[in-house]
Amino acid sequence: MRRFLRKISRNSRSPEDGIFFEKLAKILGFDPKDLKYYRKAFTHRSSNKLDENGIPFNYERLEFLGDAMLGSVIAAHLYNEVPGGDEGYLTKMRSKIVSREHLNELGRDFNLVGFVESKVNSSQFGENIHGNLFEAFIGAIYLDRGYTYCEKFLRTKIIKQYVDIAQLEGKVISYKSLIIEWCQKEKMPFSFDFVEDNGIEGQKYFGVKLHIDHKVISKARATSKKKAEEKASQRAYFALQEKISKK
Amino acid sequence: MRRFLRKISRNSRSPEDGIFFEKLAKILGFDPKDLKYYRKAFTHRSSNKLDENGIPFNYERLEFLGDAMLGSVIAAHLYNEVPGGDEGYLTKMRSKIVSREHLNELGRDFNLVGFVESKVNSSQFGENIHGNLFEAFIGAIYLDRGYTYCEKFLRTKIIKQYVDIAQLEGKVISYKSLIIEWCQKEKMPFSFDFVEDNGIEGQKYFGVKLHIDHKVISKARATSKKKAEEKASQRAYFALQEKISKK
Repeated sequence: MRRFLRKISRNSRSPEDGIFFEKLAKILGFDPKDLKYYRKAFTHRSSNKLDENGIPFNYERLEFLGDAMLGSVIAAHLYNEVPGGDEGYLTKMRSKIVSREHLNELGRDFNLVGFVESKVNSSQFGENIHGNLFEAFIGAIYLDRGYTYCEKFLRTKIIKQYVDIAQLEGKVISYKSLIIEWCQKEKMPFSFDFVEDNGIEGQKYFGVKLHIDHKVISKARATSKKKAEEKASQRAYFALQEKISKK
Repeated sequence: MRRFLRKISRNSRSPEDGIFFEKLAKILGFDPKDLKYYRKAFTHRSSNKLDENGIPFNYERLEFLGDAMLGSVIAAHLYNEVPGGDEGYLTKMRSKIVSREHLNELGRDFNLVGFVESKVNSSQFGENIHGNLFEAFIGAIYLDRGYTYCEKFLRTKIIKQYVDIAQLEGKVISYKSLIIEWCQKEKMPFSFDFVEDNGIEGQKYFGVKLHIDHKVISKARATSKKKAEEKASQRAYFALQEKISKK
């Protein structure tokens, strides 16, 4: 029944909206309700758009909102996850998680810049566009589906996959070396196989598949081979965590 | 039925917990579920308490959490309330709302320091204890009842009564003068009547009742007569807002 309703509601959309909807649903892990918030989240200042009241609209206000939501979801996560961390520790860890560099990585990984409509070529936006779009996207999720869904998205798509407290604390230097060490101990063959990835908008990307024991265990994509290897290793580490920690 | 269940659950508490519960419910506007979070929110570092795992516990971690929740609720409020404000404006307004001075005022008004168990005399805590306790209290509400209730408390008990965007913008200098002006225009008698208020813990407070047309329109309590008058005037202004703006 839900699927049926979903199909009807999808069919009532323009083809363009339908594609946007599908892409968003894939990133979110749930259906967006009102696309207008996401359109705003991907509207650059250079588009000079005005809303129905003549107020300029772009994603900058949503950045403010998304930043606040991100701050509170991460705060709650750290509070629960690190019962022994005092106020200073929690504050420091949160700054690391929501650092400009990290937010840029997230925006880039979701390729949010691909949604932007603007009169400027996106290569002129500068590096921080990725993080800004990511924050605005979080703001749009909050307006569209409320705090609970915003938190759900951040927990399942961000925290689970990107927030690694041990690594942030500097306890884990390289997941690649942990994986290699484990494979050697277990006498299992492994290889990092690079795949061509032309990326978008001229930005060069490297894709990598990590094979362990002749099976693909994880994939990753990043702006350098080294980063892609480390990311794939981290994912493999979490996938294999139970096995690895048992040894 | 709900009342009945509530009564049963209340009767199962110790007398001490029962009093704490009633006091909290009065401040919150809804029932707390688990008192332990609030006990923690009112535990000062000087108590040297340890939890069941031997980790020192006091309200400092909850301050971090409450600060984050406060930040996101206020961000959403400003985003919706000031559609024409850009990112810089929103950021500035939020800082004013969550300023140390303002948080101290809130903590003081709710008399949160009255809940603190500590080995130090509370007069030694310094002024910021009030704001710190207020933040910790917000953190406790979040842990106890979740984001929705935390937001509900902040909207009904804080934003509605304390957050006045016009005043923060400096557009309204004095509510007392607005009230006096309106009373004179309407030819209505008014008076500020001070009541004795010995406060707690040696801090001197002034209570005031604002009578307009021989009726008590609002009351307030503050550390100076001037502040109490202004606060009572602000409350009267909001109570009479429809009438005032019609003229």
